[in-house]
Amino acid sequence: MALEVVKNSDEFKRFVTKAKEIKNYKEPIGFGIARVDRGQKNSEKILQATYPIINWNENFGSAAVFIASLNECGICVDFNKDEFVTDVTREFVLNTMNAFAPFLNEAVGEEHKNVQVIKHINELFATDTIGDKSYKVVFIFEDKAPKSVESVYLKLYALSTSKADLRSLNLNGAFGILENVAWSGNTPIELEWLRENEISLKLDAKYPEINSVDKFPRFLQHIIPASNTRILETSKVRMGAQLHSGTTVMPGASYINFNAGTTGPVMVEGRISSSAIVGSGSDVGGGASILGVLSGTDGNPISIGENTLLGANSVTGVPLGDGCIVDAGVTILEGTKVTISTEEFNKIKDANPNWDANDTDVFKGGVLADLNGVHFRQDSITGTIKAFRSTREVKLNEELH
Amino acid sequence: MALEVVKNSDEFKRFVTKAKEIKNYKEPIGFGIARVDRGQKNSEKILQATYPIINWNENFGSAAVFIASLNECGICVDFNKDEFVTDVTREFVLNTMNAFAPFLNEAVGEEHKNVQVIKHINELFATDTIGDKSYKVVFIFEDKAPKSVESVYLKLYALSTSKADLRSLNLNGAFGILENVAWSGNTPIELEWLRENEISLKLDAKYPEINSVDKFPRFLQHIIPASNTRILETSKVRMGAQLHSGTTVMPGASYINFNAGTTGPVMVEGRISSSAIVGSGSDVGGGASILGVLSGTDGNPISIGENTLLGANSVTGVPLGDGCIVDAGVTILEGTKVTISTEEFNKIKDANPNWDANDTDVFKGGVLADLNGVHFRQDSITGTIKAFRSTREVKLNEELH
Amino acid sequence: MALEVVKNSDEFKRFVTKAKEIKNYKEPIGFGIARVDRGQKNSEKILQATYPIINWNENFGSAAVFIASLNECGICVDFNKDEFVTDVTREFVLNTMNAFAPFLNEAVGEEHKNVQVIKHINELFATDTIGDKSYKVVFIFEDKAPKSVESVYLKLYALSTSKADLRSLNLNGAFGILENVAWSGNTPIELEWLRENEISLKLDAKYPEINSVDKFPRFLQHIIPASNTRILETSKVRMGAQLHSGTTVMPGASYINFNAGTTGPVMVEGRISSSAIVGSGSDVGGGASILGVLSGTDGNPISIGENTLLGANSVTGVPLGDGCIVDAGVTILEGTKVTISTEEFNKIKDANPNWDANDTDVFKGGVLADLNGVHFRQDSITGTIKAFRSTREVKLNEELH
Repeated sequence: MALEVVKNSDEFKRFVTKAKEIKNYKEPIGFGIARVDRGQKNSEKILQATYPIINWNENFGSAAVFIASLNECGICVDFNKDEFVTDVTREFVLNTMNAFAPFLNEAVGEEHKNVQVIKHINELFATDTIGDKSYKVVFIFEDKAPKSVESVYLKLYALSTSKADLRSLNLNGAFGILENVAWSGNTPIELEWLRENEISLKLDAKYPEINSVDKFPRFLQHIIPASNTRILETSKVRMGAQLHSGTTVMPGASYINFNAGTTGPVMVEGRISSSAIVGSGSDVGGGASILGVLSGTDGNPISIGENTLLGANSVTGVPLGDGCIVDAGVTILEGTKVTISTEEFNKIKDANPNWDANDTDVFKGGVLADLNGVHFRQDSITGTIKAFRSTREVKLNEELH
Repeated sequence: MALEVVKNSDEFKRFVTKAKEIKNYKEPIGFGIARVDRGQKNSEKILQATYPIINWNENFGSAAVFIASLNECGICVDFNKDEFVTDVTREFVLNTMNAFAPFLNEAVGEEHKNVQVIKHINELFATDTIGDKSYKVVFIFEDKAPKSVESVYLKLYALSTSKADLRSLNLNGAFGILENVAWSGNTPIELEWLRENEISLKLDAKYPEINSVDKFPRFLQHIIPASNTRILETSKVRMGAQLHSGTTVMPGASYINFNAGTTGPVMVEGRISSSAIVGSGSDVGGGASILGVLSGTDGNPISIGENTLLGANSVTGVPLGDGCIVDAGVTILEGTKVTISTEEFNKIKDANPNWDANDTDVFKGGVLADLNGVHFRQDSITGTIKAFRSTREVKLNEELH
Repeated sequence: MALEVVKNSDEFKRFVTKAKEIKNYKEPIGFGIARVDRGQKNSEKILQATYPIINWNENFGSAAVFIASLNECGICVDFNKDEFVTDVTREFVLNTMNAFAPFLNEAVGEEHKNVQVIKHINELFATDTIGDKSYKVVFIFEDKAPKSVESVYLKLYALSTSKADLRSLNLNGAFGILENVAWSGNTPIELEWLRENEISLKLDAKYPEINSVDKFPRFLQHIIPASNTRILETSKVRMGAQLHSGTTVMPGASYINFNAGTTGPVMVEGRISSSAIVGSGSDVGGGASILGVLSGTDGNPISIGENTLLGANSVTGVPLGDGCIVDAGVTILEGTKVTISTEEFNKIKDANPNWDANDTDVFKGGVLADLNGVHFRQDSITGTIKAFRSTREVKLNEELH
């Protein structure tokens, strides 16, 4: 059995409406078609999922077509599960082509990317050039802990394409689902396969060039950044990071982990640890560390506001607002005692009218969290860590006044 | 029309003399022949220029040959312009071969490198193996802001081959001229082309391995370092950097930007920012930062003298002389207040007889700029940043005594 | 002449016993068969030795077979020398196959790896696919300064496979023996060859992608890590490093030099310099520096105990015991004056009953070397570097009580 060819876009609309009448039908949060890399030794193991395009809270018509096509193949999507993954078969592609018929010709360039994916796989099937490649259709219905390699990758894509906000997705257990593999270029290789073939690979001078051994791939293996975004070394940004347009990542001591990144143009020469977010116009100086939830912050993820400067080799363990400065070499942790004069306290208070604090000599770093316009310095005569009102502009939220 | 075959080196001398009689003739500051990489989508875009050899204030005879050959092809070099770039054509190569005729046989190894370039392109033309490669002949007549990708690269080569001094060239606007591209090995790829082909590349498992996304290539893509120079990771040195023989660049937190580098053997485990220069025998410790003109120094480029030690995770924002030490973890910026005892002041003064300063307790970092033999420490009892006469040898300039 | 085919394992035992009766026979400390890469320009130069398997104080029977096979070929191993290296010839392989005959069938998977190596080379010889590859059999009889590229690599393998302890091997002069080469993937290229071919390689668009210029290769070019070990960027770990199972090396400011590493699961985001060792359960924070013998420690290699935390951008120049903390941004060198209150002194003394020190206000960093359970902080009010008893658990050695 195959779906009938849909004749025009009106008929397509009716097709979609009808497709959604399947019992318990649910719009997916995210879906897409992925090419998967399988284990060299154990081909049942999925090592990586590569999405040419993902859908995230969008393109529900295409989702309905995919679900109806699966149904026609006798595969019932279980809408009670958090996610659903199944093989892309010739029959599925044929059905989907029929449903997408009105759009096949116009599916080029920026138009109908899901249709382009189906068209291309259809060509591969037709010409037998599909080789050992295999494809999966993947749906996420509830943002729960992922259960498959394919859904982990779909979420990482949602983060790295900025379709989902940082920290907004449930990635619990992702480390357990992903296999630790040797990456040779974009190809993941099972470590056990390498071990079993080490003797012949080495003697034959065919041992692969390994770039990393990790569960995660690198951002640039999957994501094309905006034209004004620069990443001077691919290892410095992990898949699942989010870099907004205009961000530059230098190759010195920098690193941006997954589920971390920037919200606008940011110069990154330091470390943005997992779950940390840096605001537009800010500067993470050479070797500067923003602590992450996996190390040293009691699980409170750190946000750095806009237009804030973290000096070279500074360490920031508390969230900062807009227009702050942490001087080069200065460390501010939750427990750091920071001395503020009454004059500077009043200026900082002016820049932060909602700050609920009384004047005192010494504040713990944690108490200063999220304030705007604070300049942290170490007095080079007395060694005292002090805070001042910074010279950086802070755009006050007018509604708060 | 073609140039006649030059018969011997005397005739060649006369040929060059005559060639320079062209009206308004001017010796170029730099020139060379480059292979250019063009856009995959927009072939009018030059993405990279690769020079097998560059000439910088040298080999004016070869320049005259190139200009005369162009002239013979009907292409007049405009000597009033700062730079001139044109295609290498079969006719140009034929003319140049004729003019270089006396040297064709002896142009091997270290001899007549410009002639070797012409000979090789001539062979490629002859055997039709030139494929889609294309070549340009490039002249710079005035060191003004570059106007083409080819002249930016010629200047970067002049810096990285040490034929021009660091900070000596006008690179204004270079960032605007270079295209931001995805680098796959030595090949630049237009981001827009990647976007247009993302679906098929990913589904076909042919998505390229991207090492970086940047306007600049890496030093090692174009430059062969001296035999005792080591660069443990290619991403750590940008094209346009200058590394003198014996320099070692470690792969931890190090980075050397363009128009920055070393003047002798230097151990580099930290960051040498754009425009910073480090002297022979010095040591940039692990994670040490030398601030650059693009970040935090008010545009005064920083030089570090010879035999100076920047400790691990130190930050230096002022120029230092010879034989200095900045202790591990210490930060010295222009505004840092540095305490010096009278005894140590006198010793530092002895090592810097021309230093125009009176004894006082506290000096701003900027006031201590360029001094020799200073040791910067933080007193671990009082937290005070102090300076002492270092134990490192300073070679005084005898003429100053 | 060839060795006779050994018929069974009993005969093999007698064969080995007899083989060891050669005059002056000596069991090798280490041995193995390596594929060697030779210079592109000077094929006499060995640029790299790749071992599919190494033997270190083990498999003495296989060593005896190799030595007897060489003897049969007329090659006498000189047991008075520290090491012995010779070509693997067809005749040698034939002899060895005959001696290993009882094990040829069962030599697969984890069984009889030396036999597998011989079998595979035998196949290559048989099918003429050996091309320009060449193989060496290598023995080390005394752990003296290495005299060949092959023996340097054998020792680096012994360290990186954890068959030899860190700091236990004599690597004096290794830097002088290894050639500085350009690494393109796993292939070493002579710099002089690159220079001689620069013009044609660049014009033909065949200039190789160079990853590094160094004497040493990278760990992942030769070693397959344990399945729960992660190295997020290959340049971060040099061949000759030792990483115990569960270690993770992040790609920010981290680096592990040769003859340095970990003794258990360690999170590495900082620098472990040459000869430094970090204990199980410890954490080397982002940008943290552990000084090495090549820079700043007077030649005393630094060990960090178990369960110790080096904060982000800290610098440690003295050995530390178990359960210590160096706060983010804090530097502890041998000469650093550390203030300890009487109360904290007593607590630290309790955790270190054998510590031979009297209570005083200020201790030099070097005096605190190797103590367990010490927390180093900088007082942010006074700038004083202080030590406290840490909150981290220290497992006391019961035998000392």
